[in-house]
Amino acid sequence: MFDTSDEYYMMEALQEAQKGFDADEIPVGAVVVCQDRIIARAYNNTEQLRDVTAHAEMLAFTSAMATIGGKYLQNCTLYVTLEPCVMCAGAASWTQIGRIVYGASDEKKGFSKIDYPILHPKTKVTKGVLATECESILKEFFSLKRKY
Amino acid sequence: MFDTSDEYYMMEALQEAQKGFDADEIPVGAVVVCQDRIIARAYNNTEQLRDVTAHAEMLAFTSAMATIGGKYLQNCTLYVTLEPCVMCAGAASWTQIGRIVYGASDEKKGFSKIDYPILHPKTKVTKGVLATECESILKEFFSLKRKY
Repeated sequence: MFDTSDEYYMMEALQEAQKGFDADEIPVGAVVVCQDRIIARAYNNTEQLRDVTAHAEMLAFTSAMATIGGKYLQNCTLYVTLEPCVMCAGAASWTQIGRIVYGASDEKKGFSKIDYPILHPKTKVTKGVLATECESILKEFFSLKRKY
Repeated sequence: MFDTSDEYYMMEALQEAQKGFDADEIPVGAVVVCQDRIIARAYNNTEQLRDVTAHAEMLAFTSAMATIGGKYLQNCTLYVTLEPCVMCAGAASWTQIGRIVYGASDEKKGFSKIDYPILHPKTKVTKGVLATECESILKEFFSLKRKY
């Protein structure tokens, strides 16, 4: 159904989400891929940094721009385990990223709820890659939280 | 027409915009005010950092959260010379900031173009404070750019 490489890179994003899980962060992970190479990886880090804007995507974008030494990511793909929020979609728009692939949908905060073209017109979107796995880690995190 | 303090703090944001101008950045400045004290100040820094997400508001939010050591800015006001974009409005939403005051409107990229409540429901917005001055510095910047 999906490109093998999409699943491969989403697994890498899931590894980042697991690092977030282990650090007691809401487990969302992201990687940025350029010419079949991972140039940035990050997980949600809002607790440790005490910064609600430190979403996996924001950190990955900044890291990717630093890696390539340029401000635009037209030839790159963002893989992220959860659908980006409005802030992250707005950031993606500024980077002009070529493609966004996400796993789980975010019914509450996902950018696709908004009936307005937030992303750059050239940005392609694929959703639902390893969606079950991407959702599972979030569900597990919140179910453990509820126990305490 | 406006609170004197709004004009006072917008002048501070304009000083930040001027620093941006002097650094050859698109001159947008911001300050975050909490209990009548400026707890963060920043100007757009996308060129120097080579990071298109380094808008004045994003930098000011992160700085403000670091200053207060907490993730939420409910008791704070953001003063920014230009209407926030969708990314920055999305970030503002996560911070739950109490109030946003902006100067010039952004007809192309401003968040208010979108017919969807991006901001936190409790965030109040005041627009047009020192709008002429906030616009002027942007116009001057772009008019100088066109000469070269």
